[in-house]
Amino acid sequence: METLKIMEAKKASESKTVMTELVLPNDTNNLGNLHGGKVLYWMDICSALAAGKHTRHVSVTAAVDNVSFKNPIKQGHVITITAQVTRTFNTSLEVHISVWAENILSGDKYQSNEAFYTFVALDKTGKPVQTPDVIPETEYEKKLYDGALRRRQLRLILGGRMKPEHAEELKALFTD
Amino acid sequence: METLKIMEAKKASESKTVMTELVLPNDTNNLGNLHGGKVLYWMDICSALAAGKHTRHVSVTAAVDNVSFKNPIKQGHVITITAQVTRTFNTSLEVHISVWAENILSGDKYQSNEAFYTFVALDKTGKPVQTPDVIPETEYEKKLYDGALRRRQLRLILGGRMKPEHAEELKALFTD
Amino acid sequence: METLKIMEAKKASESKTVMTELVLPNDTNNLGNLHGGKVLYWMDICSALAAGKHTRHVSVTAAVDNVSFKNPIKQGHVITITAQVTRTFNTSLEVHISVWAENILSGDKYQSNEAFYTFVALDKTGKPVQTPDVIPETEYEKKLYDGALRRRQLRLILGGRMKPEHAEELKALFTD
Amino acid sequence: METLKIMEAKKASESKTVMTELVLPNDTNNLGNLHGGKVLYWMDICSALAAGKHTRHVSVTAAVDNVSFKNPIKQGHVITITAQVTRTFNTSLEVHISVWAENILSGDKYQSNEAFYTFVALDKTGKPVQTPDVIPETEYEKKLYDGALRRRQLRLILGGRMKPEHAEELKALFTD
Amino acid sequence: METLKIMEAKKASESKTVMTELVLPNDTNNLGNLHGGKVLYWMDICSALAAGKHTRHVSVTAAVDNVSFKNPIKQGHVITITAQVTRTFNTSLEVHISVWAENILSGDKYQSNEAFYTFVALDKTGKPVQTPDVIPETEYEKKLYDGALRRRQLRLILGGRMKPEHAEELKALFTD
Amino acid sequence: METLKIMEAKKASESKTVMTELVLPNDTNNLGNLHGGKVLYWMDICSALAAGKHTRHVSVTAAVDNVSFKNPIKQGHVITITAQVTRTFNTSLEVHISVWAENILSGDKYQSNEAFYTFVALDKTGKPVQTPDVIPETEYEKKLYDGALRRRQLRLILGGRMKPEHAEELKALFTD
Repeated sequence: METLKIMEAKKASESKTVMTELVLPNDTNNLGNLHGGKVLYWMDICSALAAGKHTRHVSVTAAVDNVSFKNPIKQGHVITITAQVTRTFNTSLEVHISVWAENILSGDKYQSNEAFYTFVALDKTGKPVQTPDVIPETEYEKKLYDGALRRRQLRLILGGRMKPEHAEELKALFTD
Repeated sequence: METLKIMEAKKASESKTVMTELVLPNDTNNLGNLHGGKVLYWMDICSALAAGKHTRHVSVTAAVDNVSFKNPIKQGHVITITAQVTRTFNTSLEVHISVWAENILSGDKYQSNEAFYTFVALDKTGKPVQTPDVIPETEYEKKLYDGALRRRQLRLILGGRMKPEHAEELKALFTD
Repeated sequence: METLKIMEAKKASESKTVMTELVLPNDTNNLGNLHGGKVLYWMDICSALAAGKHTRHVSVTAAVDNVSFKNPIKQGHVITITAQVTRTFNTSLEVHISVWAENILSGDKYQSNEAFYTFVALDKTGKPVQTPDVIPETEYEKKLYDGALRRRQLRLILGGRMKPEHAEELKALFTD
Repeated sequence: METLKIMEAKKASESKTVMTELVLPNDTNNLGNLHGGKVLYWMDICSALAAGKHTRHVSVTAAVDNVSFKNPIKQGHVITITAQVTRTFNTSLEVHISVWAENILSGDKYQSNEAFYTFVALDKTGKPVQTPDVIPETEYEKKLYDGALRRRQLRLILGGRMKPEHAEELKALFTD
Repeated sequence: METLKIMEAKKASESKTVMTELVLPNDTNNLGNLHGGKVLYWMDICSALAAGKHTRHVSVTAAVDNVSFKNPIKQGHVITITAQVTRTFNTSLEVHISVWAENILSGDKYQSNEAFYTFVALDKTGKPVQTPDVIPETEYEKKLYDGALRRRQLRLILGGRMKPEHAEELKALFTD
Repeated sequence: METLKIMEAKKASESKTVMTELVLPNDTNNLGNLHGGKVLYWMDICSALAAGKHTRHVSVTAAVDNVSFKNPIKQGHVITITAQVTRTFNTSLEVHISVWAENILSGDKYQSNEAFYTFVALDKTGKPVQTPDVIPETEYEKKLYDGALRRRQLRLILGGRMKPEHAEELKALFTD
C-alpha cells in the first residue's frame, strides 16, 4: 500500500516540535517530585503536534511504548520536550520524544526519559487518512527510522494483534 | 531479598482505587476526542494512589508499559479508572489499571485501554523502601500476579537493564 | 403525575458513582487545608454524573442542602466521594453524597461531610424531562428514600416556594 | 462569651468582596450551562476572603446553607459574586453571598442565587480564634444581622448539634 | 468619523468591573512571588469584560501599554483588579486598569501596577464595529479621557503605524 | 557599575527558550479567539525562563513594554514562543520575545506579536543581584543589544522614573 502514496514525502526534521514547561506545585507529589503522568501528558501534546505538522491532520494517540523514568524531576525545574516523526505506516505514524529537565538555578541538565508514541491521522469525519512518507536525514534519524519496524512488531504483539512467532525482527533478539 | 520481608502482606483488593472523570472541553482535540495524554495522566494519579495505599509511602512512577488506545473517547463522556496493585518486587510494585468510558446519555460503555504502571515507594528523604507482599485472591488477581514476572522481564529489557537472552519467561514466547 | 410514569424504574445502586481526588497545593488555603468550595465542586460533578446515569439526560444542579464540614482536609490527602440517587420527584431527583478523606501515609480515614444535591434532568433543548422512579434495596437506601420527602419540604420552604405550615412532615419535628 | 470581646467591632461593609468571573467552556456541561459546583466553589473563595478581611485570620468553611439555583447560567456570560460578613458567633462567622450573571452582549442581568456560608477563623496552629463583632449599618445589613440567629439554629439542627424543640426562633415558624 | 456616531454615549463608570483573585501556589515562582504574566492575564480578562460592558460586543485585545510592576505580590495575598473604559476611538477603545494587592492577615494594601489595554469590538463575523462614546464624569475620569490621545499616539508610534514627527502631543514632551 | 562586573559574560543565544502551546477552548473568547492575556502569560513564563538561564537566579518581571497584537489567534492553532536575553543593566535584564501561530491543518504560520519584558534577578532572600553581561553574536542580536538603551529610556520615562528631557536617545526620534 505504501507504494501507492502520491503525497510528497517530508523530512523528519520538518515535524520537530519543542515544548518547555515549568514544573509548578500542582504538578508534583508530596515529596515535590513531578508526577510521571504529567510528563506523559506533555509528551502526548508535543508528539501530537509533531504528528499534526507531518500529516496536516488531527492526529490521535494510538499507542504509547514502554516508558522508563530515569530521574525524579523536582518542582521549579524546567522540562524541555522534543518530538519528531520517525516513520509512517500507511495511516499511522511513530513519533520519537526526548525529555530533559534543567535545574535553572544550577544549570544542571539531566535526562528524564525518551519514548515512542504512535498516532493515527484522521480526517474531519474521524476516518483514518494516509500519511506522507518520512525522509530521515541525519544518522540518528536513520537509526530511528530503521528501528521503527521492530518497535511496531512489539507494539502489535503487546496489543494482541500479532503472534510472537510472526515477528521476525523481534525473534532475532531472543533466539540469536 | 523478598524472603526477608517481615512487613505484613496485604490483599491486592485493599489497594483498589476508583476514579471517575468527566471529559471536559479542554481535555479534547479539535475533533472532540480526549487527548491520550490526559488518560495517561489520570491513570498515573489513580495508580499512584493504589500504590500509596499498599505501601503507605509516596510512590513515584518508574515505568509505564506499552499502552494501546482501543477507542476514541468523546467530550462529555465519563471515564472510570480502576487501579489495583498486582505484585511487588522489593522496592518496586506493579499496578494494573483498567479504563472504561461511558456515554452517559445512551448508557453505552466501552473499554479505552488497560495498562501496567510500575512505582517505587520512597521514604521522606526520597530513598526507596521495601514494599509489603501482595496476596492475590480472585482468579483474575492470581493471573495478574503470575504474569507480573514476565512483564517485569520485558520492562527490564526495554529499559536496557536486562539482556534478552536472560529473560527465560519471555524467550519461551518467541522460541516455542 | 408520578403514577403516569411508564419509564422503567431503576435500582438506586445503578447510579452509584465513585470519585477519587488527590488534594493538590492549589486546592488548599494558607494553612494547607482544602477549600470547602473545592469539595462542593467535586460533589457537584460526582452527583451530576449519578443523576445522569439514572436519567440518561444532562442533569443540572437545582439545590444543595445544608452542608457541614466535619474535619479539615489536608494537602496530599485523598478524597473519596460516593454519590447515589435516593428518590425522584417528577422532573427533579435527589442525590446523596458521602465524602471521606484518607491520609494515604498513615491509612487514617475520616469523614469530611455528607450532603444532598437536587438535580433537574433536561432534554437537548433544555426543557425538564420526567425521571424514572428509584427502587431502594438496602436498609440504608430505604431510609434515604423515606427521608427524601421531608428534605424536599425543607428545601421548598427555604427556597421560598412552600409555607412552613403546609410542611406536614417537617412540622412534626418542631411540635411533637 | 461575646460580652468579653475586647477586639474592636468592624462595620459589615468593611468585609465586602466582589469577584467577577467569565464562564469558560470547562466550567459548563454538555448543554453549555455552568456547573452549579463551580458557582459553589467561587462563592466559597469569595466568602472566605470576606471572612478573612473581617477576622484577619485564615478562615475555613464550616457550613453552607441550603442553596437554590434560580436560573441556568450560560457559557460566555459573566458572574458577579458579592460577599459580606453578616454576624459573628464567638469563633464562627456568617457571610452572605449574592450571585448575579450578565449576558455581556445583551446587557441582561439575572440572579443566580444567594446563600450563607459559615466560617471559623483559625490561628497559625489551626486553633479557632475569637472574631470581632459586626456593626450592621444599612437596613439590609440589619435584616441580615437579625436573621443570623434563626439561620444558626437551623444549621445546628441540620448538623445534628441542636434538638428542634430547643430552637425557639425556628419553632415559631412552624407553630404560629 | 466619530461625529457620525448615533449610538448613545455611555458613562465611563457603567463599564466598571472589579475582580478579586487569591494568589494560589501555581501562580507563583520559586520565591513565592506571583508571576507577572498571571497578573497580565487577569488584567486582560477584567478589562475585556469592561470593554464588553461598554460595547456590548466581544472585544479583543489590540494593545497593552508599558506595564511596570511596583511590588512583588506574595502567595496567599489577594489581588483586586479594577477596570474602566477611558475613551473610544471609532472601533477601538482604551481601558484603564488598576491592580492592588492585600495581605489579608495584616490588612496591608499595596499597589502592584496600573496599565492601559486597548480593545477592538467585533461583531459575530469577527469584523470591527463602531463603539459608543464615553462620558467621563469625575475629575479622574476626565484626566484619563484627556490623556488617551497622547497614549494613542505613543501606541501608534511603538506599533510602527505613526511617525514620531506627526505625534504633536507627544513631541511636546521632548521638545519643551 | 557595569565595569565592576567580574561574572563571565554569556552569549545571548545561551538563554534561548522555545515554548509550544496548543490553544485550548478555555483559552479563547466567545468568537474562538485566544485571549491576549493568555499570550502575555505564556510570554512571561517563557521569558522568565530565558532570564533564569542567563542569570541562574529566580527572575521576576519588572516591566512589559508596549505589546501590539497583529492577528487574532484561533482555537486549535499552535503557539510558538521564542525568548532570548538581549542585554543586561546591572541587576535588571531585557528579554526579547517573538510569538508565532500556526494553523496545524493548513501549515499557515502568522506572527502574533513580539515584545520586550524586563526582569530583575533575585537571590534567595529576594534581594536583587548583579547579572552577567550579554554577548550578542548575530546581526539581529546586535541590533537588539543596541536598541536596548533607547527602550530602557522609554521604560523609565513611562514608569515615571526619568524626565523626557534627559532621554537623549529618545529625544532624537522626536526632534530630528
